[in-house]
Amino acid sequence: MKFDYEVAIVGAGAAGYAAAIYAGRSGASVVVFDKGMGGGLTIEAPKVENYPGFKSISGMELMEKMKEHAKDYAELKFGEEVKKLSVSNEGVKIETTRSKYFVGAVILCTGSQHRKLGVKGEDEFAGRGVSYCATCDGFFFKGKKVVVVGGGNSAVIEAIYLKQIGCDVSVIHRRDKLRAEKALEEEAKEKGINFIWNSIVEEIIGDDFVKAVKIKNVKTGEEKVIATDGVFISIGEEPQNELAKQVGIKLDENGYIITDEMGRTNVKRVFAAGDVTGGVRQIITACAEGAKAALAVMEAIGKTSPF
Amino acid sequence: MKFDYEVAIVGAGAAGYAAAIYAGRSGASVVVFDKGMGGGLTIEAPKVENYPGFKSISGMELMEKMKEHAKDYAELKFGEEVKKLSVSNEGVKIETTRSKYFVGAVILCTGSQHRKLGVKGEDEFAGRGVSYCATCDGFFFKGKKVVVVGGGNSAVIEAIYLKQIGCDVSVIHRRDKLRAEKALEEEAKEKGINFIWNSIVEEIIGDDFVKAVKIKNVKTGEEKVIATDGVFISIGEEPQNELAKQVGIKLDENGYIITDEMGRTNVKRVFAAGDVTGGVRQIITACAEGAKAALAVMEAIGKTSPF
Repeated sequence: MKFDYEVAIVGAGAAGYAAAIYAGRSGASVVVFDKGMGGGLTIEAPKVENYPGFKSISGMELMEKMKEHAKDYAELKFGEEVKKLSVSNEGVKIETTRSKYFVGAVILCTGSQHRKLGVKGEDEFAGRGVSYCATCDGFFFKGKKVVVVGGGNSAVIEAIYLKQIGCDVSVIHRRDKLRAEKALEEEAKEKGINFIWNSIVEEIIGDDFVKAVKIKNVKTGEEKVIATDGVFISIGEEPQNELAKQVGIKLDENGYIITDEMGRTNVKRVFAAGDVTGGVRQIITACAEGAKAALAVMEAIGKTSPF
Repeated sequence: MKFDYEVAIVGAGAAGYAAAIYAGRSGASVVVFDKGMGGGLTIEAPKVENYPGFKSISGMELMEKMKEHAKDYAELKFGEEVKKLSVSNEGVKIETTRSKYFVGAVILCTGSQHRKLGVKGEDEFAGRGVSYCATCDGFFFKGKKVVVVGGGNSAVIEAIYLKQIGCDVSVIHRRDKLRAEKALEEEAKEKGINFIWNSIVEEIIGDDFVKAVKIKNVKTGEEKVIATDGVFISIGEEPQNELAKQVGIKLDENGYIITDEMGRTNVKRVFAAGDVTGGVRQIITACAEGAKAALAVMEAIGKTSPF
């Protein structure tokens, strides 16, 4: 065979594992690289209750199951980071921290990172009251008090979403006005969302779980502690798009990889799936995108798939 | 509340259950109608090995898990068929075989049916050698002998796909030439796929599992029995689009509902997800589509979602 592997997948999160399962089952030889231990952002979630089929499971356990599943169809290489891709008509050269490979096609499942506040307690309480995703975790806070940190459209929309679920919601914003659209702001106020202006979070406080945030008014210097059960941090996402940029893949205005419905990018032999492509950023959608990219990738390695 | 339920989901297959989970978790009141016992086409699959997280599970068991999961977020009404939808600016009137309802929005997850040969043994061996989906079941026949029944593009593509996985493949077609594109036919022949022309399957034979097909040459009348481990029937799909047609939803040339990326149709308040929208028709993609439609449906009921 002219390739070391027919398909290389970069990133062993939900999208990567699903792509590995589907590409392997389609008869391709598959390798998955992950710079860490795999599992993607999902492993940060102590409880996942929206992946159909599992009523309640820890993110770690769900990703462990997907890893075991993918292992049947692909070689999984952990602790091996892909540093460089070079695409030609013949294939894709890959340089990792350990070796070099020549493959037929690549599926980028490199994910995204949540932008962090960088305050005390943020990492400590991640998954124990601190969340970066209202759609994922909002339901756990039904009937409880939460603060949303941020002032853009996403922050206000997440605040309204949390309110609808039945949370008591305050938005903490460091300025005296939002960057969000006026209509959204009015909707939020109408729905009874409280705004705390000119304030930054200095510390997230708790014991087993978040109990409060310490905030500081940037105009007056006044500090106070506000009791809360949850802290939703909504100050942006950072798609892991370095490899995509390297090979000239088109990104949208927020840095997410632009693909068609099947995960094709503008660069032949390179596909993408999961959070690095934006969208609703759920485990279930990442898996579906991985599966579709794996079906589409067949043509790039001279094979045929029904889709 | 002005609605009996905010969101009604028609069809309790993978897409419907996922939509129920996501809509319920977003704070909507949700009902799911299914004319039968739910589970969709998945329940026909004795083994599912491509739904990430479950290495191997019966379709019945997977759907049972999804049902139990969805039950936490929605009222599930089995044995209740939706007969009529009337959409207005205010909401959607639903008439079922049992009652009438007024809801804010509908998600059609009505699925599709495989077109059947209608021969002896077909139903008996469904899931025990008889399959309607190479992408779903092909891998189970790696290293084995299969026949593909049909002569269109899909049949030939599925044949090539099965060959790539490592099956020994013959295509049985009732005419003396394919309806498939010439290039596909040549590719199939190059790859060593055998064609049995002018032949129809008269019976599928086996014990616990398929062992052979009895075929008849329609020109000569000659009958013979061909040993095979699998029979892939690829003579078309029938999307269950009756309700969609009723309310004027745009369909593609094959009768599948046309939606945007989030499951929106051309009719306000009506969304669609899963096999009835076409695409790759996998459990994982049906679930993802259900989840996305549930996030998008929020705006139709006067709520907000981050997506």
